[in-house]
Amino acid sequence: MARPSEDELIAAYFAPLAGPEAFGLRDDAALLAEKPGHDIVVTTDMLLAGVHFFSNDPPGAIARKSLRVNLSDLATKGAEPLGFLLSLALPGDWSEPWLAGFSQGLGEDAAAYECPLLGGDTVKSLGATAISITAFGAVPADSMVMRGGVKPGDHIYVSGTIGDASLGLKLRRKAAYDAAWIGSLSAQETAHLAGRYLLPQPRLSLRNALLVHAHAAIDISDGFAGDFSKMLRLTGMTAEVLITDVPLSPGARTALHALPSLIETILTGGDDYEILCAVPEARCASFEAEAAATGVLVTPVAIAAAGEEPPVFKDKDGKPLTFARPSFRHV
Amino acid sequence: MARPSEDELIAAYFAPLAGPEAFGLRDDAALLAEKPGHDIVVTTDMLLAGVHFFSNDPPGAIARKSLRVNLSDLATKGAEPLGFLLSLALPGDWSEPWLAGFSQGLGEDAAAYECPLLGGDTVKSLGATAISITAFGAVPADSMVMRGGVKPGDHIYVSGTIGDASLGLKLRRKAAYDAAWIGSLSAQETAHLAGRYLLPQPRLSLRNALLVHAHAAIDISDGFAGDFSKMLRLTGMTAEVLITDVPLSPGARTALHALPSLIETILTGGDDYEILCAVPEARCASFEAEAAATGVLVTPVAIAAAGEEPPVFKDKDGKPLTFARPSFRHV
Repeated sequence: MARPSEDELIAAYFAPLAGPEAFGLRDDAALLAEKPGHDIVVTTDMLLAGVHFFSNDPPGAIARKSLRVNLSDLATKGAEPLGFLLSLALPGDWSEPWLAGFSQGLGEDAAAYECPLLGGDTVKSLGATAISITAFGAVPADSMVMRGGVKPGDHIYVSGTIGDASLGLKLRRKAAYDAAWIGSLSAQETAHLAGRYLLPQPRLSLRNALLVHAHAAIDISDGFAGDFSKMLRLTGMTAEVLITDVPLSPGARTALHALPSLIETILTGGDDYEILCAVPEARCASFEAEAAATGVLVTPVAIAAAGEEPPVFKDKDGKPLTFARPSFRHV
Repeated sequence: MARPSEDELIAAYFAPLAGPEAFGLRDDAALLAEKPGHDIVVTTDMLLAGVHFFSNDPPGAIARKSLRVNLSDLATKGAEPLGFLLSLALPGDWSEPWLAGFSQGLGEDAAAYECPLLGGDTVKSLGATAISITAFGAVPADSMVMRGGVKPGDHIYVSGTIGDASLGLKLRRKAAYDAAWIGSLSAQETAHLAGRYLLPQPRLSLRNALLVHAHAAIDISDGFAGDFSKMLRLTGMTAEVLITDVPLSPGARTALHALPSLIETILTGGDDYEILCAVPEARCASFEAEAAATGVLVTPVAIAAAGEEPPVFKDKDGKPLTFARPSFRHV
């Protein structure tokens, strides 16, 4: 059977996901609707098979993760999703069922997050699958939440729980030396950690609370410790974190109890896609109330202070932790 | 010597290219400046080593080509460049000199085309280099030039000359069976064809002429014949093209004279990044005058007529040509 051409492939798999600004994907550009009184936020992430996902992950999950890591960036900026562009490099042995699964997962998330496909590019790869998504969002004019903005005395909050995805990655790899703690997990805990690696949960429901209350925010993609330090460093801030204050899921607690050295994986492993944000003390109660109303857990983990020294992460005995690899390296 | 981290790499090589909207690339999102009374056009293209460029092409040329193919899309829409996002997947053996050359070429083009870097993503690749660029442009509200818009009686023009880049690609490959026609080229013709493959010339200076006069436009990336047919098909149009009317450079004429079967390469080979556009008869004189004022050659090649049959390309004896491979396949 003949392979569909690029145009046929787009018409079959991607045109159904497209918003009206995309002209049925028959053009090679799209229009971005203006939203009066708003700024447009743009963000982009590239995901590669073997680096950011496993080639044999379900194609729908690969598609969703690719969109969701971008939605996590928009959420962190306080931005409402407007749409996205997809560039997809397909390996020589791509199959129609794979692409059907990919476009179905992508379409379900595009609908759920009201973030339509606006356009893109499909190319053949000599190597593995590569996915580049650029997402657009709208924030009220001059109010985008920045990474650099932490002030002395700000309370630093983190959303959700930390370390689940990096433990989920270890579950996926199933190395022999991880067998003991993996064996200590309940079936439900195993499923939770695995799911957190496969499918990030962009915290878009915190959008308004961030816009109204936060001085700064960063989404945790490269590990809690590294991204925490990165956000504070931008405005010459430092802080102490008691690691017992870092919110953990039941599965992460079970794993840590079985193998205490997993604390490094949990704090530096990355792929959390939770939000760290800085809230001035006077706004903490309102921020917490607004976050609670959206159903997303937010936990205070530190108070920022002026200082050039790196943040310190202390264990329950007050002993500073040192990490072999403070954060995920991209290159 | 330790490899620079992603943040160090961005600070060293890419932050100098960034516009003020990019916050020194220290954030993971950028703001797109609104332009009152204008729509924002977005377009994206992914380029892969071994597919869209040679791994050993000069890194500055690879960077420029990656930006220019996107600028060509903006030009075709009548859009003025606003900025771009870069996602770059680097292979394990990337070197600082390579990256320095890449960022230098990119920066020179960003300055020349007044299209600053707004942000992006840098990741490690298990395979070859991959580059994804998303470019933004502004057009006066509701005036973006579309692919689908050709009307009966419209004159179809093409900018520049056709086939140079696909011949340049053959020069680059230097296959034994191409030795005869390659040997017939002058040194200047050889340099011209090779350069046209390496560095597309986005026709941004035609922007205004297209906005004011054209019913439709498409940029020729997949071959003249295929993109011509694609544009006309969108509104149920057809046309006859005398291939003697298709504008050729001196080098392409020399090659064609030496090996007449190269007409297929010339008409279907792709990578031209010239613009095909449809202009109503009443506006042809003004369009030609305005194009002439910008110094870009535009040549009328056909007149559109309603009809479902594919366009016909006729040789000098009026015989229709058939192509083994009508246009470049992406997947």
